[in-house]
Amino acid sequence: MTPASESEDVRRANESFYRAFESLQTKRMEDVWLHSVRVQCTHPGWRRLLGYAAVMESWERIFENTFKMVFDLTAVEISVAGNVAWVVCTENITSHTYDGVSRSQVEATNVFERHEGCWRLVHHHGSPVASLGPDEPTRHLQ
Amino acid sequence: MTPASESEDVRRANESFYRAFESLQTKRMEDVWLHSVRVQCTHPGWRRLLGYAAVMESWERIFENTFKMVFDLTAVEISVAGNVAWVVCTENITSHTYDGVSRSQVEATNVFERHEGCWRLVHHHGSPVASLGPDEPTRHLQ
Repeated sequence: MTPASESEDVRRANESFYRAFESLQTKRMEDVWLHSVRVQCTHPGWRRLLGYAAVMESWERIFENTFKMVFDLTAVEISVAGNVAWVVCTENITSHTYDGVSRSQVEATNVFERHEGCWRLVHHHGSPVASLGPDEPTRHLQ
Repeated sequence: MTPASESEDVRRANESFYRAFESLQTKRMEDVWLHSVRVQCTHPGWRRLLGYAAVMESWERIFENTFKMVFDLTAVEISVAGNVAWVVCTENITSHTYDGVSRSQVEATNVFERHEGCWRLVHHHGSPVASLGPDEPTRHLQ
């Protein structure tokens, strides 16, 4: 398999994650993740969750309380090394709520492992982008 | 090399990153990162930065504006697969500013690649933890 096609496989796995998110169906999300006590997930603003059970419970809670979300990905950078890949991308999110539509951006890191030929998500980390210019920090600068 | 000693090497590389951060010296930070246009960095609340030059410029700006920061790491999970490793941890930060001391927490993902026997940082992603309970989300719940 060439690196280019490997990268394309990872891109598809990453897309599957966001389509599962949009579906708001836990079953779809289960198909994306590696079923392991090692998997981790840090939702924007949340503390890190560890283990498949905790991560799936978080998706259940999110899906129960979400009306509709649409993800448009930009600045997608894919790195593949052996049976590990990581995707860094910007999630441009359109959230449909009962009282209207809102837009937001989240910076994401998604780590995948290849098991039996399939790329499985083992770590998702999303962080909110502050409503500042592209180079404005929100901490560190005292 | 056994997996246990590999994991220990990655732990040391991760510690070196935080000691470089505490040193507030760009030269120390340069020694930690892979010198590559591929490296990426998402500071808490920032947009993602791509490439060694942009990442180092961000550290220069942070160091110029920081008085003193001390990092205590908890919940450190280390994963190694071939020549890639990722560390997920909680940064417990004590910031010393001109008008006192403040404490904060950041959830971090650090991805390392092994080059010529040395683990080099290729991606750092930090996200602020909201001042909420451990399971309280700040988005998704409409």
